[in-house]
Amino acid sequence: MSTMRRLNLIESHLVSRFPTIPYDDSLDEFRKKGTEINIDILQQSYFGPFYTWIKDVFKIMNENPLFNHFEEAEMSREILRKRIVHQIATIYPKLKLNYDIVKQDYMKKLGLLYPMADYDIALAVRLLVHIVLYTDTITNLGTEKHRDLVNRAYNIQDYGSFAMTELGHGSNVAKIETTATYDHATREFILNSPTATSAKWWIGAVGKTANMTVIFAQLYADNINRGVHVFVVPIRRNDASHDTLPGVVVGDCGKKLGLEGIDNGFILFKNYRVPYDALLDKFSQITTEGKFKSSIKNKDKRAGIMIAGLVGGRICCTCGSEQDMRLGLAIALRFSAVRKQFGGQEGPELPILTYPLQRLKFIPYLAKMFAIRSCVIYSLGDINAFLRKLEEDPECLEVNEFHAILSSVKCVSSWYGTACLQECRESVGGLGYSSYSQLGRIRNNQDVMVTWEGDSSVLIQQTGKFLLKQIQKSFKGQKIHAKTMTFLKTDIHEINAFKPHFESSQELENETLILDLIDYRLNLLLHQSLLKLQESTANSVDMVDAWNKSQPFYVQEACKAYGEYIMAHDLLRFVKDITAKDETLGRIMKKYWLLYTIGVIEKSLVVFMEHLFNASHVKIVRESIMRLCNELVEDSVRVIDALAPPDLVIGSVIGVSDGQIYKKMIETVEKSKRVYEKPEWLPLLLEIKGIKK
Amino acid sequence: MSTMRRLNLIESHLVSRFPTIPYDDSLDEFRKKGTEINIDILQQSYFGPFYTWIKDVFKIMNENPLFNHFEEAEMSREILRKRIVHQIATIYPKLKLNYDIVKQDYMKKLGLLYPMADYDIALAVRLLVHIVLYTDTITNLGTEKHRDLVNRAYNIQDYGSFAMTELGHGSNVAKIETTATYDHATREFILNSPTATSAKWWIGAVGKTANMTVIFAQLYADNINRGVHVFVVPIRRNDASHDTLPGVVVGDCGKKLGLEGIDNGFILFKNYRVPYDALLDKFSQITTEGKFKSSIKNKDKRAGIMIAGLVGGRICCTCGSEQDMRLGLAIALRFSAVRKQFGGQEGPELPILTYPLQRLKFIPYLAKMFAIRSCVIYSLGDINAFLRKLEEDPECLEVNEFHAILSSVKCVSSWYGTACLQECRESVGGLGYSSYSQLGRIRNNQDVMVTWEGDSSVLIQQTGKFLLKQIQKSFKGQKIHAKTMTFLKTDIHEINAFKPHFESSQELENETLILDLIDYRLNLLLHQSLLKLQESTANSVDMVDAWNKSQPFYVQEACKAYGEYIMAHDLLRFVKDITAKDETLGRIMKKYWLLYTIGVIEKSLVVFMEHLFNASHVKIVRESIMRLCNELVEDSVRVIDALAPPDLVIGSVIGVSDGQIYKKMIETVEKSKRVYEKPEWLPLLLEIKGIKK
Repeated sequence: MSTMRRLNLIESHLVSRFPTIPYDDSLDEFRKKGTEINIDILQQSYFGPFYTWIKDVFKIMNENPLFNHFEEAEMSREILRKRIVHQIATIYPKLKLNYDIVKQDYMKKLGLLYPMADYDIALAVRLLVHIVLYTDTITNLGTEKHRDLVNRAYNIQDYGSFAMTELGHGSNVAKIETTATYDHATREFILNSPTATSAKWWIGAVGKTANMTVIFAQLYADNINRGVHVFVVPIRRNDASHDTLPGVVVGDCGKKLGLEGIDNGFILFKNYRVPYDALLDKFSQITTEGKFKSSIKNKDKRAGIMIAGLVGGRICCTCGSEQDMRLGLAIALRFSAVRKQFGGQEGPELPILTYPLQRLKFIPYLAKMFAIRSCVIYSLGDINAFLRKLEEDPECLEVNEFHAILSSVKCVSSWYGTACLQECRESVGGLGYSSYSQLGRIRNNQDVMVTWEGDSSVLIQQTGKFLLKQIQKSFKGQKIHAKTMTFLKTDIHEINAFKPHFESSQELENETLILDLIDYRLNLLLHQSLLKLQESTANSVDMVDAWNKSQPFYVQEACKAYGEYIMAHDLLRFVKDITAKDETLGRIMKKYWLLYTIGVIEKSLVVFMEHLFNASHVKIVRESIMRLCNELVEDSVRVIDALAPPDLVIGSVIGVSDGQIYKKMIETVEKSKRVYEKPEWLPLLLEIKGIKK
Repeated sequence: MSTMRRLNLIESHLVSRFPTIPYDDSLDEFRKKGTEINIDILQQSYFGPFYTWIKDVFKIMNENPLFNHFEEAEMSREILRKRIVHQIATIYPKLKLNYDIVKQDYMKKLGLLYPMADYDIALAVRLLVHIVLYTDTITNLGTEKHRDLVNRAYNIQDYGSFAMTELGHGSNVAKIETTATYDHATREFILNSPTATSAKWWIGAVGKTANMTVIFAQLYADNINRGVHVFVVPIRRNDASHDTLPGVVVGDCGKKLGLEGIDNGFILFKNYRVPYDALLDKFSQITTEGKFKSSIKNKDKRAGIMIAGLVGGRICCTCGSEQDMRLGLAIALRFSAVRKQFGGQEGPELPILTYPLQRLKFIPYLAKMFAIRSCVIYSLGDINAFLRKLEEDPECLEVNEFHAILSSVKCVSSWYGTACLQECRESVGGLGYSSYSQLGRIRNNQDVMVTWEGDSSVLIQQTGKFLLKQIQKSFKGQKIHAKTMTFLKTDIHEINAFKPHFESSQELENETLILDLIDYRLNLLLHQSLLKLQESTANSVDMVDAWNKSQPFYVQEACKAYGEYIMAHDLLRFVKDITAKDETLGRIMKKYWLLYTIGVIEKSLVVFMEHLFNASHVKIVRESIMRLCNELVEDSVRVIDALAPPDLVIGSVIGVSDGQIYKKMIETVEKSKRVYEKPEWLPLLLEIKGIKK
């Protein structure tokens, strides 16, 4: 603890107007009832390759007074943005990245961002926009001649941004309006924003910081639209003036409902000329004779490949949901173990985490959190292999399958996370409405996960297209090579032939049975989606219309089920890996797996009741869930303790690890602005009350 | 429009750096497809007794530059609090209330608050705390001698607050720690806050404003705890000094995640002596001989009656959820009718409200909004009769039944509202993340509805106790007089004998059938809850434990079903009443009723599939929902236009009634702080990039 902080604490203690607060051992008592667990093994298994980065970054944060959520809560937008730049400057140089290091192991880059996001998504994203979205786009779509820009980016000689979204277009990138017209006379591109809605919008780092950007624009060569291409261009002078360049307008998008530390901005071009080399020309080029050529013939596919740089962003976004859940659950579980309200007919009040209802609200989300993390470790873990494939053959099956997994998992985790944070906020009651709980900030950060890196209900349709294509292939008798689609059954009779048998929770909690149920659900939903699509085709104006009609209740549900299928398998792998290292942990983790998968089944009871389940199955499923929550509740407090970042990183007064929540709340409130002062507007109040001064 | 505003607009237009924005007729075009409706009849039916108050208050707001969300978004907590006091001072005196007016028609008070809440929940609540929670508590629990305080309150000679919740106790009011010890020697009460957790907490108006409060405290007389009683006491001098009184500590609870305009504060007492008349002594008194007596013998019941003053608050809270939904849906529907993204294989991009998925996200919430509003009009509408009953016999069946309805409806509407606002935020995509969309502010306001006036998952248990008590009576052969419980079937065989028949959407969309299905669901859930309770009793330490074990999946669900049953009937009454006035409107409203009730059935498919429904019923239910959404979509834009407050009151750039969302967004952003300025922290940025000045 810094001397300053210590002094502040002592001072606030001295002037406190509250009665003395005795030590509250509620959290200790609750923890004691849990199983003794090997924290190191849990942390190493859970954080995987990020483990050491986390320790390093948290150490920097702990030693630096720049990291303090309480101070940030009261800061203006402008000051907060400065603060984050300062925070980046404190962390980034100590953990140097460069092209070669990242090429060797891309995970290092994500590992750096991960603990930063634990502190604040805005902090991580402020850097991510630059070293992932900007830098990866140049790396993936550029060629050898752009290497210098990549190096400059890793050295922060340039600060980059990623200008894809426009005011008028987000999800439909193919229809963006910004144009880049090739002028053969000078071998330049002329960038233009022909309409107000073509303004690049929400572009992180553009409001105040970036001097560079990668611009997505419709390329016109020979007066023909060649589809969306990407150009790396300067927008501000890279000198002490920081002036916006002639032909460019940049501004700040203003106040947001969260993530105020990110300076999202807009960009407009007016006949802004950039040299030929601004084109990231790996897939498309214009010859010195002025002829356009591209190795990807299909314009739509080309647009798809242009946004491949979003892969890193989407993985971070998936991680982000898991992180927000981890923070939210740490706060909510600790608070609920301390907070006492009501009790038995006799005796003292009980911690609210004693109540089944409260357990049911939180513990299943802890299981979901493990499911997301496992998926990041396993299905999304070998990103190096994916990036190699992407370089070799961006249209191959493995690349498409990776996109399908990532799209579905990004979306499912964003919905899990948003619902979880809302539950955490609500279910800790009024004290969760205080800024000092941090639940509001974390929920507002989480909120955007559903929107950015692809609006979830649109993005997940990419998964749907992949899956239905595979099934159609299978129907045609072709062999399915996609490694995640071994579940697929083409014959509906075979699907319907499945008759699970369980007459008790014990019989239900069987690995094989559960995996079969998960398979069944996915198969049934996919078949129903396909039928719905066929049915819709008959009364639609075109295939797009039919597709849209098949989304509600069908394709969307099937795609979510695919994401959950992936997560169920990945979490099981996690359980097995950790069991090999530590049996006690393995037993606990197995219960989370059961809770996750049976929870998935419970949310889909309607599907199962169509042919398989009756009322007594429903009862058994719910009994299992409730019993698992009850069995896991004390262990869950220990587990979240092991996985939660230090108090300073969470910054929640009601989620402090020592359980002194009331003490911390009072201390914080007493240190707040103007806590005991009269209102500045007393004269107005007196006037209204008719009191003469 | 004020001259100032006009000048600002012209100025901003002159300096805009954006391309000219042509008029966007998307919203007009979308509206045109809807049915021509009688706006007056719709407004009068929907707003009922509030209709004229709304017009009056909106007129004041429109004429006064004090009402401007854009300006408020950038204000500090302190300034915002002043602003709201100023706003209250602008509205309240023009619509004078006093004891007699309120006595004659309590709805007038709520009618004043309602349009204020349309502008900002914080504005309404800032006044509500004073004229509902504080004033009603004195009115309901005090006697003739307290009348002067009530008059002073209506004249704002005092500013009051409602000090029930403590740092350590919210839902469990019976266990609050503040004590009021009767001292017969001086015939005074001595108020004390024995612990830090006994600090009154979150008390609206206490942070800066209030000079008075009603304090909930454990009354000790003759050294015996007589349970929770309420005392009206001064906390600050009612003079120009505004000093806190000796023996009292008041402070500000600090930053919140929303509602920053409310100065929530804390109160501590240290041997604070107040005269005997501070006791609100309608139900309990201490005789001049020093003997405690009370007309309500049971201590628990007494505590229940003490919080009867919350009735007005809970009705406002129910209204609040409906209002937040109305604002959110106005923004989301208009935006989605304007925003175009994707389209058919050929042709232009289509409004996103064209897509079934987007329709399914919003239209069912519009139906829910009507259901809440109908319930406020009918089941909760005769509050005057309720207040008379409460005065005559606070323990009678009608009072208990009203509480059961209100508790369930407050909770159900809070969950509807929170989910709806989250959906609105998410489903308008990135532009919804801008502060200028107002969706963040409205959602953060809505968020607290689940928590205040009784944490919803705790409060709804009051309904559960009422319902199960009635069933138990019925089992014993007693006649059930509760007027909302005509659905009740005691014989499970009779319930199970119900065999609905429908083989198409058309057959399903039958009033009698749907009401039977809604009855069936409620009966089945109640029976299952009772069984669960019996089963739990067998393996629980006491009845409280058994009760808690019966909450998840059972009692909670039954109580929600009761609230939805009430709403389904009230909405049907609304449909019939409006049909009598206007058949076109009646036809549209009937569709909302179908959508509401079939939506309720859809969310409960698991219940219906236990014995009644098979896969084809599920399909029919969902087809009906989707078809109704499709049929209602254009009308819904017209309907929300009629019910949405003026643009100034909503303040959303993406929800403007003229549909010029991009224009408004750009104008607003260009007027934001520092939009085109360089960062104040440029030196830091240059340092990081290694650029010398």
